[in-house]
Amino acid sequence: MSDKKIFIFDTTLRDGEQVPGCKLNTREKIELALQLEALGVDIIEAGFPISSPGDFQSVEEIAKIVKNATVCGLSRAVQKDIEVAAAALKPARRPRIHTGIGTSDSHIKNKFNSTREEIIERAVQAVKWAKNFVDDVEFYAEDAGRTDNDYLARVVEAVIRAGATVVNIPDTTGYCLPDQYGEKIAFLMNHVPNIDKAILSCHCHNDLGLATANSIAGIVSGARQIECTINGLGERAGNTSLEEVVMVIKQHKQLGFYTDINAKELNPMSRLVSDTMRMPVQPNKAIVGANAFSHSSGIHQDGFLKDASTYEIINPEEVGADGSKIVLTARSGRSALAFRLQKIGYSYNRNDIDTIYQTFLQVADTKKEVMEEDLHTIAKAYNETTVTA
Amino acid sequence: MSDKKIFIFDTTLRDGEQVPGCKLNTREKIELALQLEALGVDIIEAGFPISSPGDFQSVEEIAKIVKNATVCGLSRAVQKDIEVAAAALKPARRPRIHTGIGTSDSHIKNKFNSTREEIIERAVQAVKWAKNFVDDVEFYAEDAGRTDNDYLARVVEAVIRAGATVVNIPDTTGYCLPDQYGEKIAFLMNHVPNIDKAILSCHCHNDLGLATANSIAGIVSGARQIECTINGLGERAGNTSLEEVVMVIKQHKQLGFYTDINAKELNPMSRLVSDTMRMPVQPNKAIVGANAFSHSSGIHQDGFLKDASTYEIINPEEVGADGSKIVLTARSGRSALAFRLQKIGYSYNRNDIDTIYQTFLQVADTKKEVMEEDLHTIAKAYNETTVTA
Repeated sequence: MSDKKIFIFDTTLRDGEQVPGCKLNTREKIELALQLEALGVDIIEAGFPISSPGDFQSVEEIAKIVKNATVCGLSRAVQKDIEVAAAALKPARRPRIHTGIGTSDSHIKNKFNSTREEIIERAVQAVKWAKNFVDDVEFYAEDAGRTDNDYLARVVEAVIRAGATVVNIPDTTGYCLPDQYGEKIAFLMNHVPNIDKAILSCHCHNDLGLATANSIAGIVSGARQIECTINGLGERAGNTSLEEVVMVIKQHKQLGFYTDINAKELNPMSRLVSDTMRMPVQPNKAIVGANAFSHSSGIHQDGFLKDASTYEIINPEEVGADGSKIVLTARSGRSALAFRLQKIGYSYNRNDIDTIYQTFLQVADTKKEVMEEDLHTIAKAYNETTVTA
Repeated sequence: MSDKKIFIFDTTLRDGEQVPGCKLNTREKIELALQLEALGVDIIEAGFPISSPGDFQSVEEIAKIVKNATVCGLSRAVQKDIEVAAAALKPARRPRIHTGIGTSDSHIKNKFNSTREEIIERAVQAVKWAKNFVDDVEFYAEDAGRTDNDYLARVVEAVIRAGATVVNIPDTTGYCLPDQYGEKIAFLMNHVPNIDKAILSCHCHNDLGLATANSIAGIVSGARQIECTINGLGERAGNTSLEEVVMVIKQHKQLGFYTDINAKELNPMSRLVSDTMRMPVQPNKAIVGANAFSHSSGIHQDGFLKDASTYEIINPEEVGADGSKIVLTARSGRSALAFRLQKIGYSYNRNDIDTIYQTFLQVADTKKEVMEEDLHTIAKAYNETTVTA
């Protein structure tokens, strides 16, 4: 059986952009959209057109310029929202309207002061309204993570019957464990009679650090789209990291999935988003952090230098990162020291290195990192001693 | 049945400290160790004593000052390493030596140029040697994530027979999926005859963003200790985040576990580690990021203001974070605007807010965030209009 395609739905420009401090102007949004298309994402959620005139304009300009990816606009299950989204998406070659409503009892009661039956009615009306403008309509069942599964199955069946092509099952609060989220998707695959007429989408939040695992559990159970952002940006602790799910799928071929993402663009894309949104990526961020491929402890460096696969499962070049780094600190060992000395022109035998290593440790204990100029000083001092002796 | 305790083994001062740029001096290490004890961690891995004289001194000083937590020192499966670790730990009330060796074929062949039988022999010797100095000996089977399960079970059985009290099953390369890691722990629980004489420990790395999910899968399958770091610091993409696993256990009571961590100290501890190690935490980091409890989109803010549980599963005060923030941007809605205006003394009815909201959006489209002074300007301009009219 051939591998199954997982559609990558990027919402950096919508769920990512609504983060405090991340707001972009139209020019910046267009630049990122073009890079997202070059990265190979299948769907670009470009914004929430009714939210402000500026965002309407951004979605419209992106719809004009993007060639291959589907361009998507968000709306609530409200006629006016949907009309405005449709207007902004008019120039798109492949437009998609993303509409929906909260389906958990908490949302139905506290947010809408409504009933389960009324919510299904509103959901169906929203999808039907959107279908007047576009063929491709995605419905989101907000807070699906905390929605009763039997009721959720009824909602999903109803919106598919109304014409939804994709149904998004968001873990809005980032609450689910991977098993729970996977079971929810499996339940829908098994209990929604018309499920073959649409695909399910995973939209997970990272409040407990589980968004990547939840998304993977979702596709293993039958979902075929993952909603994610570059660097895991998004409301609160953020959304699923695009780079993480893509590389899990790529590294774990036994799962039987693939994406159309060009992995070599992951690190350049991450830097572009971080710079444009002025949102730092921590050094220990998976795949795109500055240290993601750094080895500094002696045990690790020694193993790594003997065979990179000892400690590295991803070749940094595969994801467009600079080559693996061997950083020298007081926790580094002799192999790393010899390696770095050799790189700048000093070759020593094992006995030499044993002696030099003691000097190295004295220097290393006084500072964070031993730099190239320190190595020159150490090596020259050693060479003078041995020449004199 | 009462909840089962999960031991929290913090390795911020060892696996975290070996990160480029994170090296600490003895004074800094002591300060962090005392705070880790106040946080309630069960075991503090204080360092790798043989790695440098400075680190030896740090472990020794921490061993002197820590009262309740177990103090642990790392060593390779080498007699000299173990002796030096034992010497550094001598003043500790509860000393633990952590020793071990690589058990995957990749490590056995590429790193040690050895055989499976020889590695078992070296593992047993190391544990026996450590037992000469301390009762509490933890053995790590490095790269257990890629070690054949049958062989790993033999290693675990042998080191427990030699006296190991804890056996650490590291996913050294951060390669495992949660199901795989959970199955590995379950396999050991079911196939190691003397498994009741020791506890298994999860030590996961975050190269694919799965460390938290893997650790939780490990305890669900029978492990009783999690090795983790504050802010998920550590080699490459880092280790399991202490704050994430602790809050998963706390939020998901149905799992039947508890820890002794004082969650209110999580955010202060995170800031102390970030400041001391000069290692930034990204704003979208779960539990301890600056935005972890920020709401900025209109849909979210509206729901949140009606009932916080609509979008928030953790009360920020529970983890020592500042109260939830309502940040105003071009994606914010009328409820959030009214809330923030009221906080600074302007109360309006719904019609007023509808009008003011249009002005707000014009301002918001020109900047990242609408600040308090902007709100005063907007409100005063509106008040003048209505008074004049």
